[in-house]
Amino acid sequence: MPKPNVKEQLIATSLSLLHSKGFNATSVQDITAAAGVPKGSFYNHFTSKEALGLEVLQRYSERAGELGKALRDPSLTPLQRIQQYFKDFIASNVAMEFDCGCMLGNFSTELSNQVPAIRQQARESFGQSAAALAAVIAEGQRDGSICNTYTAAELAEFVVDAWQGAVLRSKVERSREPLDRYARMMLGRILK
Amino acid sequence: MPKPNVKEQLIATSLSLLHSKGFNATSVQDITAAAGVPKGSFYNHFTSKEALGLEVLQRYSERAGELGKALRDPSLTPLQRIQQYFKDFIASNVAMEFDCGCMLGNFSTELSNQVPAIRQQARESFGQSAAALAAVIAEGQRDGSICNTYTAAELAEFVVDAWQGAVLRSKVERSREPLDRYARMMLGRILK
Repeated sequence: MPKPNVKEQLIATSLSLLHSKGFNATSVQDITAAAGVPKGSFYNHFTSKEALGLEVLQRYSERAGELGKALRDPSLTPLQRIQQYFKDFIASNVAMEFDCGCMLGNFSTELSNQVPAIRQQARESFGQSAAALAAVIAEGQRDGSICNTYTAAELAEFVVDAWQGAVLRSKVERSREPLDRYARMMLGRILK
Repeated sequence: MPKPNVKEQLIATSLSLLHSKGFNATSVQDITAAAGVPKGSFYNHFTSKEALGLEVLQRYSERAGELGKALRDPSLTPLQRIQQYFKDFIASNVAMEFDCGCMLGNFSTELSNQVPAIRQQARESFGQSAAALAAVIAEGQRDGSICNTYTAAELAEFVVDAWQGAVLRSKVERSREPLDRYARMMLGRILK
């Protein structure tokens, strides 16, 4: 069986390490040691730790897009799709024991004013999540199942932002309660 | 005029430096250089950078409590108090040009699973904000001006959590729009 290439090993290792420890608390040495590759090989694949961080954040965002597949499930109503979407993301946080939070949120607070390319990637990822949600919300507004006091875009952006706050708080509390509260408020009050 | 003592200089400098650059991106050397004190003097006052971080977060939380004084203004109705509270915190973020975010949120994402004492301080600070808000919300529920579908505590915790998400996004977008959207949703939909 072919050995996964070194670049892929570095990205896979960093996905877990940077998610758990954060960007600045993790050194290139930590990453190469955990990946079991020589430190020198790092710079054959990445020009800097920031360049690796950007690729890792892109990969993380792609996975978040896959985790959000419920939004594209045609067998569910718009509200059911959003409900399932929340369930899937909450389950993902429960599986991580709330310890890591969302890498997109972590990188946003830690690096937005330090690494322009990471801030730009975070903007795009948030924008993509909001656009995917807005399409479902708009569908629910057309069939009358979702509140239309606000535009679909406005509601979707708020849903995305408030999720980050809920995840941040659940990391501090090491508890799912902020995530469940978020889902109750979104489904019971904001989108209703 | 007496020179402010070295410990106070270190805390004051760190309040700005750790807020702007984050905890792990700032070294003890950065702090002592910015404070204009010898590096060796740091350890006369703090056992570690973590111990300084904790004191800085406590100081930051006290200041946030002072900034939240509108909640205690007896000349305003409960909803007016909350509206003014949002205005004051938004103005504070505008003044910082959205570049730093909330230190409490930054430390929560960066350090919750690294420094137990800082996680504990963050829990307490979030709890204090939520309690102060809950008292005002309960008053508004009694006089019928605030929604009573949820308990005051539940609403207050959600208000606190979602604010962190709005600040995080405003840091990424370098824009006040997420903060204004937050205020619109809270006053127009959640608390209404």
